[in-house]
Amino acid sequence: MNPAGGDGRPQPATRATIARFRDGVFSTVEDTLSGEEPLEIRLAWQSDGPVETKSIAVTMRTPGDDFALAAGFLHGEAIVGEARDIVDIAYCLDADDDQEFNIVTVTLRPGLSFDPARLERNFYTSSSCGVCGKATLEALEIMGCDALPDGAAFNAEVIAGLPAAIKEAQAVFAKTGGLHAAALFDEQGHIADVREDVGRHNALDKLVGNQLLAGHLPLQRYGVLLSGRASFELLQKALVARVPLVVAIGAPSDLAVSLAEEFGITLVGFARGNGFNVYSRPDRIAGARAAVGVEK
Amino acid sequence: MNPAGGDGRPQPATRATIARFRDGVFSTVEDTLSGEEPLEIRLAWQSDGPVETKSIAVTMRTPGDDFALAAGFLHGEAIVGEARDIVDIAYCLDADDDQEFNIVTVTLRPGLSFDPARLERNFYTSSSCGVCGKATLEALEIMGCDALPDGAAFNAEVIAGLPAAIKEAQAVFAKTGGLHAAALFDEQGHIADVREDVGRHNALDKLVGNQLLAGHLPLQRYGVLLSGRASFELLQKALVARVPLVVAIGAPSDLAVSLAEEFGITLVGFARGNGFNVYSRPDRIAGARAAVGVEK
Repeated sequence: MNPAGGDGRPQPATRATIARFRDGVFSTVEDTLSGEEPLEIRLAWQSDGPVETKSIAVTMRTPGDDFALAAGFLHGEAIVGEARDIVDIAYCLDADDDQEFNIVTVTLRPGLSFDPARLERNFYTSSSCGVCGKATLEALEIMGCDALPDGAAFNAEVIAGLPAAIKEAQAVFAKTGGLHAAALFDEQGHIADVREDVGRHNALDKLVGNQLLAGHLPLQRYGVLLSGRASFELLQKALVARVPLVVAIGAPSDLAVSLAEEFGITLVGFARGNGFNVYSRPDRIAGARAAVGVEK
Repeated sequence: MNPAGGDGRPQPATRATIARFRDGVFSTVEDTLSGEEPLEIRLAWQSDGPVETKSIAVTMRTPGDDFALAAGFLHGEAIVGEARDIVDIAYCLDADDDQEFNIVTVTLRPGLSFDPARLERNFYTSSSCGVCGKATLEALEIMGCDALPDGAAFNAEVIAGLPAAIKEAQAVFAKTGGLHAAALFDEQGHIADVREDVGRHNALDKLVGNQLLAGHLPLQRYGVLLSGRASFELLQKALVARVPLVVAIGAPSDLAVSLAEEFGITLVGFARGNGFNVYSRPDRIAGARAAVGVEK
Protein backbone atom coordinates (compact mmCIF):
# COMPACT_ATOMS: atom_id res chain seq x y z
CA MET A 1 0.00 0.00 0.00
CA ASN A 2 1.17 3.46 -0.70
CA PRO A 3 -1.74 5.50 0.61
CA ALA A 4 -0.93 9.06 -0.18
CA GLY A 5 -1.75 12.05 1.95
CA GLY A 6 -2.68 15.28 0.23
CA ASP A 7 0.92 15.88 -0.80
CA GLY A 8 1.69 12.35 -1.98
CA ARG A 9 3.54 11.24 1.12
CA PRO A 10 3.24 7.63 2.27
CA GLN A 11 1.60 7.46 5.69
CA PRO A 12 2.79 5.99 9.02
CA ALA A 13 -0.48 4.07 9.38
CA THR A 14 -3.34 3.00 7.11
CA ARG A 15 -6.87 1.69 7.60
CA ALA A 16 -8.04 -1.78 6.59
CA THR A 17 -11.12 -3.96 6.86
CA ILE A 18 -10.28 -7.32 8.38
CA ALA A 19 -11.92 -10.49 9.65
CA ARG A 20 -11.60 -10.99 13.40
CA PHE A 21 -11.94 -14.39 15.08
CA ARG A 22 -12.69 -14.22 18.82
CA ASP A 23 -13.97 -16.97 21.07
CA GLY A 24 -15.23 -19.05 18.18
CA VAL A 25 -16.96 -16.28 16.22
CA PHE A 26 -15.91 -14.37 13.08
CA SER A 27 -16.78 -10.72 12.57
CA THR A 28 -15.73 -7.95 10.21
CA VAL A 29 -14.00 -4.95 11.79
CA GLU A 30 -12.05 -1.83 10.83
CA ASP A 31 -8.41 -1.88 11.88
CA THR A 32 -5.27 0.28 11.62
CA LEU A 33 -2.05 -1.07 10.10
CA SER A 34 1.51 0.17 10.55
CA GLY A 35 2.91 1.69 7.39
CA GLU A 36 5.90 0.03 5.71
CA GLU A 37 7.67 1.44 2.65
CA PRO A 38 11.23 1.24 1.37
CA LEU A 39 13.48 4.22 1.97
CA GLU A 40 16.55 4.68 -0.18
CA ILE A 41 19.34 6.68 1.44
CA ARG A 42 21.69 8.49 -0.93
CA LEU A 43 24.87 10.28 -0.07
CA ALA A 44 26.25 13.35 -1.88
CA TRP A 45 29.79 14.50 -1.17
CA GLN A 46 32.64 16.40 -2.75
CA SER A 47 36.26 15.34 -2.40
CA ASP A 48 38.53 16.99 -4.94
CA GLY A 49 36.47 16.95 -8.09
CA PRO A 50 32.76 17.41 -8.74
CA VAL A 51 29.98 16.36 -6.34
CA GLU A 52 29.55 12.59 -6.26
CA THR A 53 26.32 10.80 -5.40
CA LYS A 54 25.88 7.20 -4.28
CA SER A 55 22.94 5.12 -3.14
CA ILE A 56 24.17 3.50 0.06
CA ALA A 57 21.19 1.71 1.60
CA VAL A 58 17.59 0.69 1.14
CA THR A 59 15.67 -0.02 4.33
CA MET A 60 12.05 -1.01 4.86
CA ARG A 61 10.71 1.61 7.24
CA THR A 62 7.56 3.21 8.59
CA PRO A 63 7.15 6.55 6.78
CA GLY A 64 7.85 9.56 8.98
CA ASP A 65 11.03 11.02 10.54
CA ASP A 66 12.77 10.13 7.28
CA PHE A 67 15.47 12.79 7.56
CA ALA A 68 16.21 11.72 11.13
CA LEU A 69 16.37 8.09 10.00
CA ALA A 70 18.88 8.92 7.27
CA ALA A 71 21.00 11.03 9.61
CA GLY A 72 20.91 8.40 12.36
CA PHE A 73 21.82 5.62 9.94
CA LEU A 74 24.85 7.59 8.72
CA HIS A 75 25.84 8.32 12.30
CA GLY A 76 25.67 4.64 13.28
CA GLU A 77 27.93 3.86 10.34
CA ALA A 78 30.34 6.59 11.53
CA ILE A 79 29.95 8.52 8.27
CA VAL A 80 28.72 11.66 10.07
CA GLY A 81 29.53 12.64 13.65
CA GLU A 82 27.56 15.80 14.33
CA ALA A 83 24.93 18.10 12.86
CA ARG A 84 27.42 20.33 11.01
CA ASP A 85 28.69 17.34 9.01
CA ILE A 86 25.40 17.49 7.10
CA VAL A 87 24.74 20.57 4.95
CA ASP A 88 21.50 19.39 3.38
CA ILE A 89 18.89 16.63 3.62
CA ALA A 90 16.19 16.47 0.95
CA TYR A 91 13.71 14.15 -0.71
CA CYS A 92 14.40 13.15 -4.29
CA LEU A 93 13.19 15.83 -6.64
CA ASP A 94 13.38 14.09 -9.98
CA ALA A 95 11.41 10.99 -9.08
CA ASP A 96 7.81 10.51 -10.07
CA ASP A 97 5.02 11.01 -7.54
CA ASP A 98 5.06 7.50 -6.13
CA GLN A 99 8.68 7.56 -5.16
CA GLU A 100 9.56 11.14 -4.34
CA PHE A 101 9.14 10.62 -0.60
CA ASN A 102 10.94 7.29 -0.51
CA ILE A 103 14.37 8.69 -1.37
CA VAL A 104 16.44 10.89 0.91
CA THR A 105 19.70 12.48 -0.22
CA VAL A 106 22.10 13.59 2.52
CA THR A 107 24.77 16.08 1.43
CA LEU A 108 27.97 16.03 3.49
CA ARG A 109 29.83 19.24 4.30
CA PRO A 110 32.73 19.97 1.91
CA GLY A 111 35.97 18.55 3.20
CA LEU A 112 34.40 15.75 5.29
CA SER A 113 36.42 12.70 4.41
CA PHE A 114 34.38 9.79 3.09
CA ASP A 115 35.62 6.63 1.51
CA PRO A 116 32.94 5.02 -0.66
CA ALA A 117 34.99 1.81 -0.85
CA ARG A 118 34.30 1.28 2.87
CA LEU A 119 30.64 0.73 2.08
CA GLU A 120 31.35 -2.04 -0.38
CA ARG A 121 31.58 -4.39 2.56
CA ASN A 122 30.23 -4.29 6.08
CA PHE A 123 32.88 -2.62 8.18
CA TYR A 124 33.07 -5.41 10.71
CA THR A 125 34.40 -7.86 8.17
CA SER A 126 37.81 -6.39 8.81
CA SER A 127 39.90 -9.54 8.69
CA SER A 128 41.05 -11.16 5.51
CA CYS A 129 39.04 -14.34 5.87
CA GLY A 130 35.69 -13.91 7.41
CA VAL A 131 34.09 -12.59 10.51
CA CYS A 132 33.48 -13.43 14.13
CA GLY A 133 32.10 -11.81 17.25
CA LYS A 134 35.60 -10.95 18.46
CA ALA A 135 36.39 -9.31 15.11
CA THR A 136 33.20 -7.22 15.30
CA LEU A 137 34.27 -5.85 18.69
CA GLU A 138 37.78 -5.15 17.43
CA ALA A 139 36.33 -3.32 14.42
CA LEU A 140 34.55 -0.93 16.78
CA GLU A 141 37.87 -0.12 18.44
CA ILE A 142 39.39 0.44 15.02
CA MET A 143 36.51 2.85 14.30
CA GLY A 144 37.76 4.86 17.25
CA CYS A 145 35.09 3.96 19.82
CA ASP A 146 36.33 4.41 23.39
CA ALA A 147 34.65 2.99 26.45
CA LEU A 148 31.88 5.09 27.97
CA PRO A 149 33.07 7.23 30.90
CA ASP A 150 31.61 6.99 34.41
CA GLY A 151 29.27 9.72 35.52
CA ALA A 152 25.66 9.04 34.66
CA ALA A 153 23.69 7.33 37.45
CA PHE A 154 20.19 5.91 37.32
CA ASN A 155 17.77 4.74 39.96
CA ALA A 156 16.44 1.16 39.91
CA GLU A 157 12.83 2.26 40.41
CA VAL A 158 13.18 4.71 37.52
CA ILE A 159 14.28 1.87 35.24
CA ALA A 160 11.43 -0.37 36.38
CA GLY A 161 8.99 2.41 35.50
CA LEU A 162 10.20 2.87 31.93
CA PRO A 163 8.06 0.23 30.18
CA ALA A 164 4.90 1.98 31.34
CA ALA A 165 6.30 5.37 30.35
CA ILE A 166 7.17 4.31 26.81
CA LYS A 167 3.74 2.78 26.21
CA GLU A 168 2.19 6.09 27.11
CA ALA A 169 4.57 7.95 24.79
CA GLN A 170 4.09 5.71 21.73
CA ALA A 171 1.65 7.29 19.33
CA VAL A 172 1.20 4.95 16.37
CA PHE A 173 1.74 1.78 18.38
CA ALA A 174 -1.36 2.45 20.44
CA LYS A 175 -3.40 2.23 17.25
CA THR A 176 -1.63 -0.58 15.45
CA GLY A 177 0.28 -2.60 18.05
CA GLY A 178 2.78 -3.06 15.28
CA LEU A 179 5.72 -0.79 15.90
CA HIS A 180 9.04 -0.97 17.64
CA ALA A 181 10.01 2.08 19.65
CA ALA A 182 13.22 3.63 20.89
CA ALA A 183 13.01 6.25 23.63
CA LEU A 184 15.52 8.62 25.18
CA PHE A 185 15.22 9.19 28.94
CA ASP A 186 17.17 11.25 31.43
CA GLU A 187 18.48 10.34 34.88
CA GLN A 188 15.12 11.20 36.41
CA GLY A 189 13.30 8.86 34.05
CA HIS A 190 11.66 11.57 31.97
CA ILE A 191 11.10 10.51 28.36
CA ALA A 192 12.88 13.18 26.29
CA ASP A 193 12.09 11.70 22.87
CA VAL A 194 10.46 8.60 21.38
CA ARG A 195 10.54 7.33 17.78
CA GLU A 196 8.73 4.40 16.19
CA ASP A 197 9.24 2.10 13.24
CA VAL A 198 8.39 -1.39 11.97
CA GLY A 199 12.13 -2.06 12.23
CA ARG A 200 13.86 -1.84 15.58
CA HIS A 201 17.08 -0.61 13.96
CA ASN A 202 15.18 2.16 12.24
CA ALA A 203 13.47 3.26 15.46
CA LEU A 204 16.88 3.76 17.10
CA ASP A 205 18.32 5.44 13.99
CA LYS A 206 15.38 7.87 14.01
CA LEU A 207 15.94 8.64 17.69
CA VAL A 208 19.70 9.21 17.37
CA GLY A 209 19.31 11.06 14.06
CA ASN A 210 16.73 13.39 15.55
CA GLN A 211 19.08 14.21 18.44
CA LEU A 212 21.97 14.66 16.03
CA LEU A 213 20.07 17.10 13.82
CA ALA A 214 19.07 19.07 16.95
CA GLY A 215 22.75 19.31 17.94
CA HIS A 216 22.28 17.20 21.09
CA LEU A 217 24.97 14.56 20.57
CA PRO A 218 26.76 12.99 22.40
CA LEU A 219 24.10 11.54 24.72
CA GLN A 220 26.29 10.70 27.70
CA ARG A 221 23.71 11.82 30.32
CA TYR A 222 20.86 9.76 28.85
CA GLY A 223 19.65 6.21 28.61
CA VAL A 224 17.93 4.55 25.65
CA LEU A 225 14.90 2.29 26.03
CA LEU A 226 14.25 -0.35 23.35
CA SER A 227 10.80 -1.93 23.00
CA GLY A 228 12.21 -5.26 21.80
CA ARG A 229 15.37 -7.29 22.11
CA ALA A 230 18.92 -5.95 22.35
CA SER A 231 21.15 -7.16 19.53
CA PHE A 232 24.75 -6.37 18.69
CA GLU A 233 23.85 -3.78 16.10
CA LEU A 234 21.58 -1.84 18.45
CA LEU A 235 24.33 -1.70 21.08
CA GLN A 236 26.74 -0.53 18.40
CA LYS A 237 24.46 2.38 17.51
CA ALA A 238 24.11 3.29 21.20
CA LEU A 239 27.90 3.16 21.62
CA VAL A 240 28.54 5.48 18.70
CA ALA A 241 25.97 7.92 20.17
CA ARG A 242 27.80 7.59 23.56
CA VAL A 243 24.74 6.34 25.48
CA PRO A 244 25.87 4.83 28.82
CA LEU A 245 22.66 2.89 29.60
CA VAL A 246 20.59 0.70 27.29
CA VAL A 247 17.34 -0.78 28.65
CA ALA A 248 15.55 -3.44 26.59
CA ILE A 249 12.06 -4.79 27.22
CA GLY A 250 13.24 -8.05 25.67
CA ALA A 251 16.34 -10.22 25.96
CA PRO A 252 19.90 -9.28 24.97
CA SER A 253 22.10 -11.54 22.86
CA ASP A 254 25.46 -12.73 24.15
CA LEU A 255 27.33 -10.55 21.65
CA ALA A 256 25.34 -7.49 22.77
CA VAL A 257 26.43 -8.26 26.34
CA SER A 258 30.05 -8.65 25.19
CA LEU A 259 29.96 -5.28 23.47
CA ALA A 260 28.41 -3.67 26.55
CA GLU A 261 31.08 -5.18 28.81
CA GLU A 262 33.93 -4.23 26.52
CA PHE A 263 32.82 -0.63 26.07
CA GLY A 264 31.41 0.04 29.52
CA ILE A 265 27.73 0.30 28.66
CA THR A 266 25.22 -0.65 31.33
CA LEU A 267 22.91 -3.14 29.62
CA VAL A 268 19.51 -3.96 31.13
CA GLY A 269 17.11 -6.56 29.73
CA PHE A 270 13.64 -7.94 30.46
CA ALA A 271 12.54 -4.59 31.90
CA ARG A 272 9.04 -5.10 33.32
CA GLY A 273 6.95 -3.32 35.91
CA ASN A 274 8.31 -5.36 38.80
CA GLY A 275 11.96 -5.60 37.84
CA PHE A 276 14.72 -6.14 35.27
CA ASN A 277 18.05 -7.90 34.70
CA VAL A 278 21.42 -6.14 34.55
CA TYR A 279 23.92 -7.77 32.17
CA SER A 280 26.88 -5.40 32.47
CA ARG A 281 28.18 -2.45 34.50
CA PRO A 282 25.55 -2.51 37.32
CA ASP A 283 27.57 0.22 39.05
CA ARG A 284 25.64 2.93 37.17
CA ILE A 285 22.43 1.83 38.90
CA ALA A 286 22.05 3.07 42.47
CA GLY A 287 21.40 0.16 44.81
CA ALA A 288 22.89 -2.43 42.50
CA ARG A 289 26.51 -1.74 43.42
CA ALA A 290 26.52 -3.12 46.93
CA ALA A 291 23.97 -5.83 46.20
CA VAL A 292 26.05 -7.53 43.54
CA GLY A 293 29.41 -6.70 45.08
CA VAL A 294 30.47 -4.24 42.40
CA GLU A 295 32.97 -1.75 43.81
CA LYS A 296 33.74 0.19 40.68
CA MET B 1 31.37 -13.77 23.09
CA ASN B 2 32.46 -16.62 20.94
CA PRO B 3 32.22 -19.49 23.36
CA ALA B 4 33.59 -22.49 21.60
CA GLY B 5 32.36 -26.02 21.94
CA GLY B 6 34.88 -28.81 21.74
CA ASP B 7 35.25 -28.34 17.98
CA GLY B 8 35.51 -24.53 18.00
CA ARG B 9 31.92 -23.90 16.97
CA PRO B 10 30.12 -20.87 18.35
CA GLN B 11 27.14 -21.94 20.46
CA PRO B 12 23.42 -21.15 20.16
CA ALA B 13 23.31 -20.13 23.83
CA THR B 14 25.83 -19.15 26.52
CA ARG B 15 25.80 -18.79 30.32
CA ALA B 16 26.28 -15.52 32.16
CA THR B 17 26.17 -14.18 35.72
CA ILE B 18 23.81 -11.23 35.97
CA ALA B 19 22.25 -8.90 38.55
CA ARG B 20 18.50 -9.34 38.88
CA PHE B 21 16.24 -6.62 40.33
CA ARG B 22 12.84 -7.88 41.55
CA ASP B 23 10.37 -6.16 43.81
CA GLY B 24 12.94 -3.72 45.13
CA VAL B 25 15.75 -6.21 45.78
CA PHE B 26 18.94 -6.99 43.83
CA SER B 27 20.41 -10.48 43.67
CA THR B 28 23.05 -12.27 41.62
CA VAL B 29 21.83 -15.12 39.43
CA GLU B 30 23.01 -17.39 36.62
CA ASP B 31 21.28 -16.84 33.30
CA THR B 32 21.34 -18.15 29.72
CA LEU B 33 21.84 -15.81 26.77
CA SER B 34 20.95 -16.32 23.11
CA GLY B 35 24.02 -16.64 20.92
CA GLU B 36 24.66 -14.02 18.24
CA GLU B 37 27.54 -14.17 15.77
CA PRO B 38 28.01 -12.89 12.24
CA LEU B 39 27.60 -15.37 9.40
CA GLU B 40 29.15 -14.59 6.05
CA ILE B 41 27.45 -16.29 3.09
CA ARG B 42 29.62 -16.89 0.04
CA LEU B 43 28.53 -18.12 -3.34
CA ALA B 44 30.64 -20.22 -5.69
CA TRP B 45 29.51 -20.74 -9.29
CA GLN B 46 30.84 -21.52 -12.72
CA SER B 47 29.56 -19.84 -15.86
CA ASP B 48 31.89 -20.27 -18.83
CA GLY B 49 35.31 -19.85 -17.29
CA PRO B 50 36.77 -20.90 -13.94
CA VAL B 51 34.81 -21.13 -10.67
CA GLU B 52 34.01 -17.70 -9.29
CA THR B 53 33.44 -16.92 -5.61
CA LYS B 54 31.71 -13.92 -4.11
CA SER B 55 30.76 -12.88 -0.61
CA ILE B 56 27.11 -11.90 -0.90
CA ALA B 57 25.87 -11.24 2.64
CA VAL B 58 26.82 -10.95 6.27
CA THR B 59 24.00 -11.51 8.74
CA MET B 60 24.01 -11.48 12.54
CA ARG B 61 22.58 -14.85 13.48
CA THR B 62 22.25 -17.39 16.26
CA PRO B 63 24.78 -20.16 15.55
CA GLY B 64 23.18 -23.41 14.42
CA ASP B 65 21.36 -24.49 11.24
CA ASP B 66 23.93 -22.45 9.33
CA PHE B 67 23.68 -24.46 6.11
CA ALA B 68 19.89 -24.20 6.20
CA LEU B 69 20.18 -20.45 6.81
CA ALA B 70 22.46 -20.01 3.80
CA ALA B 71 20.23 -22.14 1.58
CA GLY B 72 17.07 -20.38 2.74
CA PHE B 73 18.60 -16.95 2.22
CA LEU B 74 19.57 -17.84 -1.35
CA HIS B 75 16.09 -19.23 -1.96
CA GLY B 76 14.43 -16.05 -0.72
CA GLU B 77 16.62 -14.07 -3.11
CA ALA B 78 15.57 -16.43 -5.92
CA ILE B 79 19.17 -17.52 -6.54
CA VAL B 80 18.35 -21.19 -5.90
CA GLY B 81 15.00 -22.84 -6.42
CA GLU B 82 15.42 -26.42 -5.24
CA ALA B 83 17.84 -28.80 -3.55
CA ARG B 84 19.56 -29.87 -6.76
CA ASP B 85 20.60 -26.28 -7.49
CA ILE B 86 23.12 -26.64 -4.66
CA VAL B 87 25.96 -29.13 -5.14
CA ASP B 88 27.87 -28.31 -1.95
CA ILE B 89 27.59 -26.33 1.29
CA ALA B 90 30.65 -26.07 3.52
CA TYR B 91 32.24 -23.99 6.23
CA CYS B 92 35.31 -21.97 5.31
CA LEU B 93 38.38 -24.16 5.43
CA ASP B 94 41.18 -21.63 5.23
CA ALA B 95 40.05 -19.37 8.06
CA ASP B 96 41.61 -19.45 11.50
CA ASP B 97 39.83 -21.20 14.36
CA ASP B 98 37.75 -18.22 15.45
CA GLN B 99 36.12 -17.74 12.10
CA GLU B 100 35.91 -21.13 10.47
CA PHE B 101 32.31 -21.68 11.55
CA ASN B 102 31.14 -18.17 10.68
CA ILE B 103 31.58 -18.53 6.93
CA VAL B 104 29.44 -20.75 4.71
CA THR B 105 30.18 -21.24 1.02
CA VAL B 106 27.34 -22.50 -1.17
CA THR B 107 28.36 -23.98 -4.52
CA LEU B 108 25.74 -23.79 -7.27
CA ARG B 109 25.28 -26.59 -9.76
CA PRO B 110 27.13 -26.05 -13.04
CA GLY B 111 24.93 -24.33 -15.58
CA LEU B 112 22.66 -22.59 -13.07
CA SER B 113 22.42 -19.06 -14.34
CA PHE B 114 23.47 -16.44 -11.84
CA ASP B 115 24.07 -12.77 -12.44
CA PRO B 116 26.33 -11.28 -9.78
CA ALA B 117 25.43 -7.77 -10.94
CA ARG B 118 21.92 -8.36 -9.62
CA LEU B 119 23.28 -8.44 -6.08
CA GLU B 120 24.93 -5.06 -6.38
CA ARG B 121 21.57 -3.57 -5.59
CA ASN B 122 18.50 -4.84 -3.82
CA PHE B 123 16.30 -6.37 -6.46
CA TYR B 124 13.26 -4.35 -5.54
CA THR B 125 14.91 -1.12 -6.59
CA SER B 126 13.98 -1.97 -10.12
CA SER B 127 12.94 1.43 -11.39
CA SER B 128 15.38 4.04 -12.51
CA CYS B 129 14.76 6.55 -9.78
CA GLY B 130 14.06 5.04 -6.44
CA VAL B 131 11.69 2.69 -4.79
CA CYS B 132 8.20 2.40 -3.47
CA GLY B 133 5.84 -0.19 -2.13
CA LYS B 134 4.15 -0.56 -5.49
CA ALA B 135 7.53 -1.09 -7.15
CA THR B 136 8.44 -3.79 -4.63
CA LEU B 137 5.29 -5.71 -5.50
CA GLU B 138 5.93 -5.29 -9.22
CA ALA B 139 9.48 -6.55 -8.73
CA LEU B 140 8.09 -9.79 -7.30
CA GLU B 141 6.01 -10.24 -10.43
CA ILE B 142 9.09 -9.60 -12.54
CA MET B 143 10.88 -12.28 -10.49
CA GLY B 144 8.23 -14.69 -11.77
CA CYS B 145 6.12 -15.06 -8.63
CA ASP B 146 2.57 -16.13 -9.41
CA ALA B 147 -0.33 -15.92 -6.99
CA LEU B 148 -0.77 -18.92 -4.68
CA PRO B 149 -3.35 -21.43 -5.93
CA ASP B 150 -6.46 -22.39 -3.98
CA GLY B 151 -6.47 -25.76 -2.28
CA ALA B 152 -5.07 -25.67 1.21
CA ALA B 153 -7.70 -25.21 3.96
CA PHE B 154 -7.19 -24.59 7.64
CA ASN B 155 -9.47 -24.69 10.64
CA ALA B 156 -9.91 -21.58 12.81
CA GLU B 157 -9.44 -23.51 16.04
CA VAL B 158 -6.22 -25.01 14.68
CA ILE B 159 -4.86 -21.52 14.03
CA ALA B 160 -5.84 -20.30 17.48
CA GLY B 161 -3.95 -23.22 18.99
CA LEU B 162 -0.66 -22.49 17.18
CA PRO B 163 0.88 -20.01 19.65
CA ALA B 164 0.79 -22.63 22.41
CA ALA B 165 2.18 -25.28 20.05
CA ILE B 166 5.15 -23.19 18.97
CA LYS B 167 6.09 -22.32 22.56
CA GLU B 168 6.25 -26.00 23.31
CA ALA B 169 8.40 -26.64 20.25
CA GLN B 170 10.93 -23.86 20.83
CA ALA B 171 14.05 -25.26 22.42
CA VAL B 172 16.49 -22.39 23.02
CA PHE B 173 13.76 -19.81 23.59
CA ALA B 174 12.57 -21.62 26.69
CA LYS B 175 15.97 -21.03 28.24
CA THR B 176 16.74 -17.53 27.00
CA GLY B 177 13.45 -15.88 26.08
CA GLY B 178 15.50 -14.21 23.38
CA LEU B 179 14.80 -15.90 20.10
CA HIS B 180 12.42 -15.47 17.23
CA ALA B 181 10.94 -18.63 15.80
CA ALA B 182 9.45 -19.74 12.51
CA ALA B 183 7.43 -22.95 12.44
CA LEU B 184 5.94 -25.04 9.66
CA PHE B 185 2.54 -26.60 10.34
CA ASP B 186 0.21 -28.76 8.31
CA GLU B 187 -3.54 -28.49 7.78
CA GLN B 188 -4.16 -30.44 11.01
CA GLY B 189 -2.04 -27.98 12.99
CA HIS B 190 0.85 -30.38 13.58
CA ILE B 191 4.20 -28.58 13.86
CA ALA B 192 6.37 -30.19 11.18
CA ASP B 193 9.50 -28.09 11.83
CA VAL B 194 10.59 -25.14 13.96
CA ARG B 195 13.74 -23.00 13.69
CA GLU B 196 15.00 -20.22 15.94
CA ASP B 197 17.24 -17.17 15.61
CA VAL B 198 17.88 -13.75 17.14
CA GLY B 199 16.76 -12.39 13.77
CA ARG B 200 13.24 -13.07 12.54
CA HIS B 201 14.39 -13.14 8.91
CA ASN B 202 17.01 -15.71 9.78
CA ALA B 203 14.51 -17.94 11.59
CA LEU B 204 12.37 -18.10 8.44
CA ASP B 205 15.40 -18.57 6.18
CA LYS B 206 16.49 -21.50 8.38
CA LEU B 207 13.02 -23.04 8.16
CA VAL B 208 12.70 -22.71 4.40
CA GLY B 209 16.33 -23.68 3.83
CA ASN B 210 15.91 -26.82 5.89
CA GLN B 211 12.87 -27.82 3.85
CA LEU B 212 14.68 -27.01 0.61
CA LEU B 213 17.69 -29.15 1.51
CA ALA B 214 15.32 -32.01 2.39
CA GLY B 215 13.68 -31.70 -1.03
CA HIS B 216 10.31 -30.64 0.42
CA LEU B 217 9.71 -27.43 -1.54
CA PRO B 218 7.28 -26.03 -2.59
CA LEU B 219 5.28 -25.84 0.67
CA GLN B 220 1.82 -25.34 -0.80
CA ARG B 221 0.06 -27.61 1.75
CA TYR B 222 1.59 -25.91 4.80
CA GLY B 223 1.32 -22.76 6.83
CA VAL B 224 4.15 -20.81 8.47
CA LEU B 225 3.91 -19.43 12.00
CA LEU B 226 6.04 -16.40 12.91
CA SER B 227 6.73 -15.55 16.56
CA GLY B 228 6.90 -11.81 15.88
CA ARG B 229 5.51 -9.29 13.42
CA ALA B 230 4.86 -9.85 9.74
CA SER B 231 6.86 -7.51 7.51
CA PHE B 232 7.08 -7.26 3.75
CA GLU B 233 10.31 -9.24 3.57
CA LEU B 234 8.93 -12.17 5.59
CA LEU B 235 5.90 -12.37 3.30
CA GLN B 236 8.21 -12.26 0.31
CA LYS B 237 10.14 -15.27 1.62
CA ALA B 238 6.88 -17.14 2.24
CA LEU B 239 5.69 -16.32 -1.26
CA VAL B 240 8.85 -17.63 -2.90
CA ALA B 241 8.48 -20.86 -0.85
CA ARG B 242 4.80 -21.02 -2.03
CA VAL B 243 3.31 -20.99 1.49
CA PRO B 244 -0.43 -20.19 1.26
CA LEU B 245 -0.95 -19.24 4.95
CA VAL B 246 1.22 -17.02 7.16
CA VAL B 247 0.25 -16.69 10.83
CA ALA B 248 2.02 -14.04 12.93
CA ILE B 249 1.83 -13.66 16.70
CA GLY B 250 2.38 -9.94 16.19
CA ALA B 251 1.01 -7.31 13.81
CA PRO B 252 1.45 -7.18 10.04
CA SER B 253 2.55 -4.03 8.21
CA ASP B 254 0.39 -2.53 5.49
CA LEU B 255 2.86 -3.55 2.78
CA ALA B 256 2.85 -7.13 4.07
CA VAL B 257 -0.95 -7.09 3.72
CA SER B 258 -0.66 -5.65 0.20
CA LEU B 259 1.72 -8.41 -0.82
CA ALA B 260 -0.58 -11.05 0.70
CA GLU B 261 -3.61 -9.64 -1.15
CA GLU B 262 -1.78 -9.33 -4.45
CA PHE B 263 -0.36 -12.85 -4.39
CA GLY B 264 -3.23 -14.64 -2.69
CA ILE B 265 -1.60 -15.48 0.63
CA THR B 266 -3.88 -15.80 3.66
CA LEU B 267 -2.29 -13.51 6.26
CA VAL B 268 -3.24 -13.86 9.93
CA GLY B 269 -1.95 -11.58 12.70
CA PHE B 270 -2.26 -11.19 16.48
CA ALA B 271 -2.70 -14.95 16.86
CA ARG B 272 -3.46 -15.59 20.53
CA GLY B 273 -5.12 -18.36 22.48
CA ASN B 274 -8.60 -16.86 22.11
CA GLY B 275 -8.47 -15.62 18.54
CA PHE B 276 -6.71 -13.88 15.67
CA ASN B 277 -7.17 -11.36 12.84
CA VAL B 278 -7.34 -12.26 9.15
CA TYR B 279 -5.93 -9.59 6.84
CA SER B 280 -6.30 -11.26 3.46
CA ARG B 281 -7.87 -14.27 1.75
CA PRO B 282 -10.04 -15.50 4.67
CA ASP B 283 -11.52 -18.08 2.27
CA ARG B 284 -8.77 -20.56 3.18
CA ILE B 285 -10.02 -20.66 6.77
CA ALA B 286 -13.10 -22.81 7.34
CA GLY B 287 -15.83 -20.80 9.02
CA ALA B 288 -14.47 -17.45 7.93
CA ARG B 289 -15.94 -17.55 4.43
CA ALA B 290 -19.58 -17.13 5.29
CA ALA B 291 -18.93 -14.92 8.32
CA VAL B 292 -17.16 -12.22 6.38
CA GLY B 293 -19.15 -12.61 3.20
CA VAL B 294 -16.30 -14.03 1.13
CA GLU B 295 -17.64 -16.16 -1.67
CA LYS B 296 -14.36 -17.02 -3.34
